[in-house]
Amino acid sequence: MKGIWKYQKWMDLPGGLLPFSLGEGATPLIQTKNMGPSQGRSQLYLKLETANPSGSYKDRFAAFAIADLLRKKSKRCLATSSGNTGAALAAYAAAAGLPCYIVLVEGAPEGKLAQMQAHGAHLVTVKGFGINKEISESIFAKLALLASHYQTQIQVSAFRYSPVGMQGVQTIGFELAEDLPEADHVFVPAGGGGLALAICRGYQLWKHRQPEFKLPKIHCVQPEGNNTIAGNLRAGLEHAQAVENAFTRVSGLQVANVIDGDKTLQACRLSGGNGYLVSDEEVFDAQQILAKREGVFAEPAGAVAVAGWKKSVEFGEVSPDEKAVCIVTGNGFKDPPSIAGMIAKNPLHFLEDVGELEIYFNSNEPNQ
Amino acid sequence: MKGIWKYQKWMDLPGGLLPFSLGEGATPLIQTKNMGPSQGRSQLYLKLETANPSGSYKDRFAAFAIADLLRKKSKRCLATSSGNTGAALAAYAAAAGLPCYIVLVEGAPEGKLAQMQAHGAHLVTVKGFGINKEISESIFAKLALLASHYQTQIQVSAFRYSPVGMQGVQTIGFELAEDLPEADHVFVPAGGGGLALAICRGYQLWKHRQPEFKLPKIHCVQPEGNNTIAGNLRAGLEHAQAVENAFTRVSGLQVANVIDGDKTLQACRLSGGNGYLVSDEEVFDAQQILAKREGVFAEPAGAVAVAGWKKSVEFGEVSPDEKAVCIVTGNGFKDPPSIAGMIAKNPLHFLEDVGELEIYFNSNEPNQ
Repeated sequence: MKGIWKYQKWMDLPGGLLPFSLGEGATPLIQTKNMGPSQGRSQLYLKLETANPSGSYKDRFAAFAIADLLRKKSKRCLATSSGNTGAALAAYAAAAGLPCYIVLVEGAPEGKLAQMQAHGAHLVTVKGFGINKEISESIFAKLALLASHYQTQIQVSAFRYSPVGMQGVQTIGFELAEDLPEADHVFVPAGGGGLALAICRGYQLWKHRQPEFKLPKIHCVQPEGNNTIAGNLRAGLEHAQAVENAFTRVSGLQVANVIDGDKTLQACRLSGGNGYLVSDEEVFDAQQILAKREGVFAEPAGAVAVAGWKKSVEFGEVSPDEKAVCIVTGNGFKDPPSIAGMIAKNPLHFLEDVGELEIYFNSNEPNQ
Repeated sequence: MKGIWKYQKWMDLPGGLLPFSLGEGATPLIQTKNMGPSQGRSQLYLKLETANPSGSYKDRFAAFAIADLLRKKSKRCLATSSGNTGAALAAYAAAAGLPCYIVLVEGAPEGKLAQMQAHGAHLVTVKGFGINKEISESIFAKLALLASHYQTQIQVSAFRYSPVGMQGVQTIGFELAEDLPEADHVFVPAGGGGLALAICRGYQLWKHRQPEFKLPKIHCVQPEGNNTIAGNLRAGLEHAQAVENAFTRVSGLQVANVIDGDKTLQACRLSGGNGYLVSDEEVFDAQQILAKREGVFAEPAGAVAVAGWKKSVEFGEVSPDEKAVCIVTGNGFKDPPSIAGMIAKNPLHFLEDVGELEIYFNSNEPNQ
C-alpha cells in the first residue's frame, strides 16, 4: 500500500478494517524558496496537504472514517463540517456508495460547498452552528440521537467523536518524521485542535517505535478570533477554554467549543511547543505571500501556520539554524472569496488583435 | 529526490539543470470502485493528476521549464496557455522570482485564471486565440519574435516549442510503468497531443532500460469538436490535421492547430493504440460519474479519457480481464461553470433552528 494505509499496522484500529483509498497522503514537503531565506531561516518547509485528492488533510480522516463505516456495514454517513471534512467525506462516501448527510457550520465557503454538492451529499446548515457555543452544543446532542436512530456514528474531525478517522490524520506525523527526521519545530493551525493533537500523537507513536528519535516542538497557531487553546498554552494554563462566539473570518477555524482542546494543549506542551495567536490580517497576508513568493495556492486556514511561524521569528523563538515545518492544510480553491482581493488587482487584458501584443508587452515591463 | 526529479538522469536534459520543485508528480493511481466493475471491467484505474500542486499535470511541465529558464538565467517567463499551463507556470515562476507573462486562449475558465492572477502573472488574451487556426498561427509567430527580443524562450506545453518542459510530462509514463507494470491500455485526452506523445515517449524510454517490459497500448481521446488526431489515427492515416475552428466546449482541449499531432498519431499507433472521439455530452456525463460514483472531482478535460474508455468498452476494444488506466488531467475547481449543473440540482438547505433537523432527516431518506 501507498499513502496513509502503509502505516495501518502501527495504529490502534478495529480488526477487519479494509483499506479504502482515493490516493490520500504522501503529500509533498517542500523547502521555501523566499519566505524562509528572507527571514534568515533557510530551513523552512511547507507540508502541502493541499495536494490531497479533495484538496485538504481531511482526506486522511475520511479514508479511515469511511473504511470504518463500511466495516460496520453502516447504511449512511452523518457528519458535521465547516467545509473540508464535508468535502472529503462526500467524496469518499460517494466512492463507497454510502448516502452522505452533512450538517454545515454557518458560512461554509462556496468552493467546499461545490465539492459536496458535486459528490451528491445531502447538505443542511443551521443558523449559528459553529459560531455560537450554545447552538453548537445543542446540535451535537441532537445529532448524537439521530446517529443512534440511524445506526451510524456521527463523523466530526475530532478525537472526541471520531477516534478512528482521526488516526488517519496521525499519518501526517509519521510522514514528517520520515521525510524530515531532524525537524525542530512544527507549526499547526487549530480550530478545535484535532489536527495538532493528531500530529503530536503520530510523532509519539513514531518515538515509541524508535526511542532514540528526537521529537520536534509542536506549536498550536490560532486566529485571535478563535482563541480556545493557543492563548492558554502560552500562558501556562492547564485547560483550553470555549469562546462565546468565534469571530475570526478564517473559514474552517471557527470552532467556539473546546472539543479536543484540553488534550491538544497538553500534548503540544509536552512536546515543548507553544501557542501563537495571529490576526486575520496576518493570515491573509501570509496567504498572499504563499501565492506570490512560493507559488503555493492555499486557503486562509492553510496560511495560519505560516503566520504563526512568522510570529515565532519576531518573538525570537526559532533560531536561524533550526528546521521548521508549517502545515498548509487546504487548497486556495476551497475559499474563492478570500482571494478576490489578489485577483481584482491583477486583471486579464483583452486584446482585439495580434498587433496589440507588442504594445502590451512594451507597456508591461517586469518592474512589478 | 522525490517526484519527477528522481528520473532526471534518465532523460535528455541540458547539463546543469538544477531541480526546482513544488512537489509535482508521484500522483495517486487508484482502482475504480464503481465505473470499471459496472462494465464488467474490474481492472480500471485512474491516474489522478488532479493531485499535483497546482491541480493539473502541467506542473510536471512547469517544473522542468522553469528550472531550464533559471539555468539559462532568463529574466522572464513568456507563455501561451489555455489555462492549466499558465496556472502551473505562474506558480513556479512566482517561486522562482521570475516575472511571468501569459497569453491566454479565448475563454480560459475562471478557476485557472484565479490561480494565475493570485500568483501575480501578467495576463493577456487575444480574440480568437486557440479557437481560430489563422489567428493562432499569427500569435505564435509574433510571440517567437518577442521571446527572442526578451532573450527568453516561449513556453508552450508541446514538444515542438518546449522540449525540456515536455520531458517533465514523460514522467507520467515512468510512474505508470512503475506502479502498474502490467497495464494493457492507457487512455489519454488530447488537445494538441503533447500529453499522449509524452506518455508514449516515457514508456519507450522505460522499455529502452528494461527491454523485456511489455508496453501498453496508448490511446488518444479527443472531443469531436477538436478532431485533429483521433479520427485520423483510427482511420489509418499518416498525419494529423488542423481544424478551421475548434468548437468543443471542453476547456483546455481547443487546439485547432496540429502542433505535436503528427508525432502523437505515430507514437500512439506504434504502441498499438487507437483514436477515440467523444461528444461534449459524453465528457460531461463522465465528469458527473467521476464525482458521484468515484469521489473524483475533475474538470471536463480530466474526464475525457474516461469517456474514451467507455467508448472502447462499447466497441469491444478492451476485454474484461485487461488492465486499463485513464489519465485524469485536471481538478474540478479549475472550471467551476462546468459543475454548475450538478450543483444547482443539489442545494444547501438552511434551517433556522436545531428542532428542524429531525424533520429534515426524516424527509430526506437515502432513496436518492
